[in-house]
Amino acid sequence: MQITEEPKIRIESSRPSMNLRHVVESQQFTVPLLMELFDRTRLMERIVARGGTLDYQNRILASLFYEPSTRTRFSFEAAMHRLGGRVLSTEHARYFSSAIETEQVEDSIRIIGSYSDVIVIRHNQEGGARRAAAVSPVPVINAGDGEGGQHPTQALLDLFTIYRERPIEGLSVAFIGELDRGRTVRSLAYLLAKFDRVKIYFVSPPELQMKPDILEYLDRHEVKYEIEADINKVVGEVDVVYQTRIRPDRVSSVASQMRYAIDSSVLPKLKPNAMILHPLPRTVELDKTVDSDPRAFYFRQAANGLVVRMALLTMLLDR
Amino acid sequence: MQITEEPKIRIESSRPSMNLRHVVESQQFTVPLLMELFDRTRLMERIVARGGTLDYQNRILASLFYEPSTRTRFSFEAAMHRLGGRVLSTEHARYFSSAIETEQVEDSIRIIGSYSDVIVIRHNQEGGARRAAAVSPVPVINAGDGEGGQHPTQALLDLFTIYRERPIEGLSVAFIGELDRGRTVRSLAYLLAKFDRVKIYFVSPPELQMKPDILEYLDRHEVKYEIEADINKVVGEVDVVYQTRIRPDRVSSVASQMRYAIDSSVLPKLKPNAMILHPLPRTVELDKTVDSDPRAFYFRQAANGLVVRMALLTMLLDR
Amino acid sequence: MQITEEPKIRIESSRPSMNLRHVVESQQFTVPLLMELFDRTRLMERIVARGGTLDYQNRILASLFYEPSTRTRFSFEAAMHRLGGRVLSTEHARYFSSAIETEQVEDSIRIIGSYSDVIVIRHNQEGGARRAAAVSPVPVINAGDGEGGQHPTQALLDLFTIYRERPIEGLSVAFIGELDRGRTVRSLAYLLAKFDRVKIYFVSPPELQMKPDILEYLDRHEVKYEIEADINKVVGEVDVVYQTRIRPDRVSSVASQMRYAIDSSVLPKLKPNAMILHPLPRTVELDKTVDSDPRAFYFRQAANGLVVRMALLTMLLDR
Repeated sequence: MQITEEPKIRIESSRPSMNLRHVVESQQFTVPLLMELFDRTRLMERIVARGGTLDYQNRILASLFYEPSTRTRFSFEAAMHRLGGRVLSTEHARYFSSAIETEQVEDSIRIIGSYSDVIVIRHNQEGGARRAAAVSPVPVINAGDGEGGQHPTQALLDLFTIYRERPIEGLSVAFIGELDRGRTVRSLAYLLAKFDRVKIYFVSPPELQMKPDILEYLDRHEVKYEIEADINKVVGEVDVVYQTRIRPDRVSSVASQMRYAIDSSVLPKLKPNAMILHPLPRTVELDKTVDSDPRAFYFRQAANGLVVRMALLTMLLDR
Repeated sequence: MQITEEPKIRIESSRPSMNLRHVVESQQFTVPLLMELFDRTRLMERIVARGGTLDYQNRILASLFYEPSTRTRFSFEAAMHRLGGRVLSTEHARYFSSAIETEQVEDSIRIIGSYSDVIVIRHNQEGGARRAAAVSPVPVINAGDGEGGQHPTQALLDLFTIYRERPIEGLSVAFIGELDRGRTVRSLAYLLAKFDRVKIYFVSPPELQMKPDILEYLDRHEVKYEIEADINKVVGEVDVVYQTRIRPDRVSSVASQMRYAIDSSVLPKLKPNAMILHPLPRTVELDKTVDSDPRAFYFRQAANGLVVRMALLTMLLDR
Repeated sequence: MQITEEPKIRIESSRPSMNLRHVVESQQFTVPLLMELFDRTRLMERIVARGGTLDYQNRILASLFYEPSTRTRFSFEAAMHRLGGRVLSTEHARYFSSAIETEQVEDSIRIIGSYSDVIVIRHNQEGGARRAAAVSPVPVINAGDGEGGQHPTQALLDLFTIYRERPIEGLSVAFIGELDRGRTVRSLAYLLAKFDRVKIYFVSPPELQMKPDILEYLDRHEVKYEIEADINKVVGEVDVVYQTRIRPDRVSSVASQMRYAIDSSVLPKLKPNAMILHPLPRTVELDKTVDSDPRAFYFRQAANGLVVRMALLTMLLDR
């Protein structure tokens, strides 16, 4: 039996990431921390492009998804594999694991934390990730917790997708859709608030508008924003159109749902160098005819989930 | 942080496999391509027998099963592991993934294709694999799509199982069971049609007989076949008995179901060197007393799934 | 294509483990075999502490869970990963796999055994693991089979947790809870019976007491035991308090359920060096206020699942 010993791995960096223990909400990320993450992400892009790998072969990531999300789970697990690491996975722990029926998430995390080096949790209740982080012996990453909760790594890859194309300072962004339950919108709004001269437009039916907590946060940080019900008044003004879903049951009619859709009739109104983002999956609010438009960035955005999560994992595992 | 670079891997072969991009239906496979596959499969047999491995350690296979099939999924995933590769897995995406509820399979494939090097898809709808292949940035393998669809890799391992024992040219095969919905039978019939002097017998209750599309294909390719309702008229004539399921709800009575069963009473009628195949799982149509008969090849057939799929993956990943 | 060959791996050991082919029930383990397992477990503790790995990189473990148990599955899979090996996993085969609907477990095991090097099975029926072992071409480990069945690896990690702290000879243990369906209690009682001067107390409501088969086994092996309904008569007497669940529907009232709970009011009655164990998950029978007590060993007990299962896997894979 040969035993290989694994030296502690560190990526040399001028910026200390010691303050990053868990990733629960996007507010945690300072601009310097974001810049470190994005530096590492660019490095990961080069490594993946060369078909290279890293030396995390003795590290284990546990995916603990209490509700399913194949794409998000795959992007975390692929990231760990591309780092050379290993994965424990649960697709739908809520119904399948005895854990959630009879046990506090705290006990599950204590135990799973003794089997793994990092835990990615998608919890069905707001605050689930925070409860997990409070007791976990290893880093915890929030992969979405409840409708009103957050999805911080989605916001990180959204921001990186924009950052790769243009400076965030002075950016104007329109968030469109079902904003009161927009987990990804909430998380990205917190991040944008950290940059200078950002202008945000919240575009949705009045009954589905962004909740006050975010608006108060933006006020406190002196971020300019506007509440708007008419998409046509906004789409021509912004650098980034961030489209999200409107579930049919949330609006009175299909007509009012379609009033917020992006399709070939909206494209001419956009700035020539605008970016169209969408967290996906999409329904009718983003027409397939948009896919071929050079301003459609949503598939690149999804692909960026791999490299951003690789970079984030190295920051957590190198501690 | 040490970075290992992965050289592009190629298996030296006199036969080019450049025309194999996706595996959607068995008709794609020419006889030369089948021979290349089987050459590689024999090599894989030797590697597995020696407990060896291959150097695909930076390649990722994504199993996207919209409906469950533990055995098929495990054989693909084990094949990728035996190649030294890595696996992303979903056991039952249809109910668990937000993907299928709200999203076209096309979007899921575009995204998952940016996280992986090859996608194995079991879709619940006929044509699902073709839709996936049409948009995928990486090779797609059809692991079964709908009842009337295909299961081409099952046909490849079925054919390899026969090929290992005898020449395919001049082979006589009886397909028995619920043929109108026989995904594996359909795929294997397409493959057999590519070889000379093959004779096929389709044996089933008249109401469950093979659909015209296959019969017309065989006519076009001048393959001899017979439609038969009485199993006893056929089993003594053929080199291969390919037994499949008859679901009780598809026939009027258990008696008419059992009329097509293979049990100890049928064995004496078979040729001494006949081969009994079955894609498994089985119910009453294949009695356990047959397992000990030297002509029972169905467990070896299932085991061959590993090496055939290893070989197929190398052909797709080496492109 | 480079081919690496894998030499057969053996851990040098004075004690032969040749008689360990499958792990179906705890009675299989002799004291010498337990001592070999615990020697190997201590070695695994050192390897894991150093972040080391072992060279089982070409070996595949298949997790076949017909009913879900995220913690048990993760501990087996993490153990295989820490050995450098690979994992095939199914989270809930009972409902998802076509296997269990239409196929005998025997057929599934024969097939999966041709894809993997060891199978871990959690079956929903008592005797399921024994049926699997009877036909499997590779070692089978019982990860729990039915309510009245066994969970031998849980008993092994329970015993190791005690063994690390004190000699098993002369130990006094109180099993508390729903003993008639206590799979883990049954398995551990069988193990304890192999050591000298052990004293067991079975503490539960009379209607949920331990079944006669275990009591007769203890009689045959001249193990002292007492049947007791009052927890207070016992907790002060024992070295180990092994607490288990009482499901509300099994007792007449919450009051009678709480009569068997361990909380801060019970702690003063325990010996100063007593150990509190629980297989987890817990409900009301073990209060969180106990977690901070130095006598609370249940999280260390769960963590020990990793190293004990690593050691067990090496014994099965080195054969």
